[in-house]
Amino acid sequence: MLVSPLHAIVPAGGAGTRLWPLSRASHPKFLLDLTGTGRSLLQQTWDRLLPLTGPERIHVVTGQRHAAAVAAQLRDADVLAEPSPRDSMPAIGLAAAVIAAREPDAVIGSFAADHVIGDDELFHAAVREAVDVAATGKVVTIGLEPTFASAAFGYIEAAERLPGMPTARAVARFVEKPDAETAAAYLATGAFSWNAGMFVTRADVLLGHLERLHPPLHEGLRTIAAAWDTPRRDEVLDEHWPRLTRISIDHAVAEPVSLDGGVAVVPGRFAWTDLGDFASLADTADSDDAVWVDADGFVATRTAQTVSVVGIADAVVAVTDDAVLVTTRAHAQQVKAVPAAWQERGRDDLL
Amino acid sequence: MLVSPLHAIVPAGGAGTRLWPLSRASHPKFLLDLTGTGRSLLQQTWDRLLPLTGPERIHVVTGQRHAAAVAAQLRDADVLAEPSPRDSMPAIGLAAAVIAAREPDAVIGSFAADHVIGDDELFHAAVREAVDVAATGKVVTIGLEPTFASAAFGYIEAAERLPGMPTARAVARFVEKPDAETAAAYLATGAFSWNAGMFVTRADVLLGHLERLHPPLHEGLRTIAAAWDTPRRDEVLDEHWPRLTRISIDHAVAEPVSLDGGVAVVPGRFAWTDLGDFASLADTADSDDAVWVDADGFVATRTAQTVSVVGIADAVVAVTDDAVLVTTRAHAQQVKAVPAAWQERGRDDLL
Repeated sequence: MLVSPLHAIVPAGGAGTRLWPLSRASHPKFLLDLTGTGRSLLQQTWDRLLPLTGPERIHVVTGQRHAAAVAAQLRDADVLAEPSPRDSMPAIGLAAAVIAAREPDAVIGSFAADHVIGDDELFHAAVREAVDVAATGKVVTIGLEPTFASAAFGYIEAAERLPGMPTARAVARFVEKPDAETAAAYLATGAFSWNAGMFVTRADVLLGHLERLHPPLHEGLRTIAAAWDTPRRDEVLDEHWPRLTRISIDHAVAEPVSLDGGVAVVPGRFAWTDLGDFASLADTADSDDAVWVDADGFVATRTAQTVSVVGIADAVVAVTDDAVLVTTRAHAQQVKAVPAAWQERGRDDLL
Repeated sequence: MLVSPLHAIVPAGGAGTRLWPLSRASHPKFLLDLTGTGRSLLQQTWDRLLPLTGPERIHVVTGQRHAAAVAAQLRDADVLAEPSPRDSMPAIGLAAAVIAAREPDAVIGSFAADHVIGDDELFHAAVREAVDVAATGKVVTIGLEPTFASAAFGYIEAAERLPGMPTARAVARFVEKPDAETAAAYLATGAFSWNAGMFVTRADVLLGHLERLHPPLHEGLRTIAAAWDTPRRDEVLDEHWPRLTRISIDHAVAEPVSLDGGVAVVPGRFAWTDLGDFASLADTADSDDAVWVDADGFVATRTAQTVSVVGIADAVVAVTDDAVLVTTRAHAQQVKAVPAAWQERGRDDLL
């Protein structure tokens, strides 16, 4: 059942350098079928949102260089092309301003293009509650139940229950990625969830916070949005976009508003991963066929070459037409150094 | 300066499965340029022997399936094609019998096609002394000075010096591949050298030992040799070859004759490796260009694909058109299990 008046905003950015060489600057993570389902992560995101919004109310915000690829993967999507990356607040704010100009009472929900969610029913239930809470004027985030003491995510601390809502709570604070010890302490309290960047809010509430907290950014977004559905779109965008404050939605709105009690969290009890690195990919996707001798791990091949591993535990091997990457699960975070190293050697073709 | 009347016999066999996927049954180690010199190991063996024998007195014994490839790499070589592999004694014995039929006073020296030798001058000096000792009727082996307590080679124990020779000693005994502890004890005595299968002997002496110790094998070899330079070669070879005893020259002649004091050893003080696995290849050949992040090791690529390794010490990565192999130096010996595992899966194309 569609959730009126929800519009989904899907920021589609990020090179996914920890998944290099599968993910490339020219063909990033969200465009790839990393889980072997036959659908890219972006298409899976579309499939997941469609029952909530229908095709007309999904808006993908992406870089101009990826706009054509996004449109090719999602024939019916509204694609908003950013002239340059300016972090998540301008991206989501642009879509919010454009939507609000067309439909003043819209509720918007922001959902990353490259996350994997295990149970659509639980996801939909969380979004429905978040929309109900957002109708009361709150900025609402969906907090993921942590499955381990990850140091790779920011955390949300929940406070008291919101009256009349099935599960929603007020947000006490947002915290940045902690160290492992702090993360373990968070988990022990039971009050913390992972911040997956899922925000649901009335468009006018978000723009009101922006007007109060970041007036020049708000002014720029309003100006661009006013020209969006006119012949002057490109001209106005080119003039104003480069001057928009480069800031995340967490730092711009969620954190400051939470300090005034304006943010709520709905617990997400569905399985979730951001597929941030090969360790999480190994947990999610099937390994390609390989020979293991005194070894185990994860293999992803994009060529016809066979892969054989001897004597390495928790190995990770990724093979593409132009690159072979070998690492272990424990070193998955360091993979991002590899494309940088090739770039230093003048191999921009490998980025 | 040529060493009259020396003939070199070069057994060219073995699949080199511990160097898979670089070395294949269809294109084995000796045919490959593994050291990056522009010459295959077989061609390097030829180059090394040429100053001792000239082109007419180098005889390569290989399987029928590799005879054309050997002839293509060595235009001037005498190639003796075995109908099937029957270990080293029939291979060397066939060449010895053919040579003796043409030149009764010939001295033969047997040198593997796929070993790497660091200093040709020292190698030539050892062979010259071995030929002098062989003239006295001894079977002579060149023993390699061990550089570490290897459990991968057989050993030769030297006894008293031979009068009138610069360095040669009698051989007390041959021992099979020892365990690491025994190998260390051998090295401590200073009397043991590695058995690299280099034998120098008068052809008539070798055939005499065979006649005494293995009469049916000797008879078969003599029969084939008598027909070799006649139109009946193939017919006689096909009839008699499959019945020849399958045995190594070590077990057939070197060990039993040494017990009677008939074997001498000349110390080889040149650098030597049999390039038996990726660990020894890593010691010998240059690694291809790669990116190492918190890692080191050896990379050999036969494609244009880049290789990047993250977080693995002493890694070994080999890449060909149809296979990617990943291991570490410490597991180099286990690589031979890999082609066997692919064969079990019906991938005979990978052997």
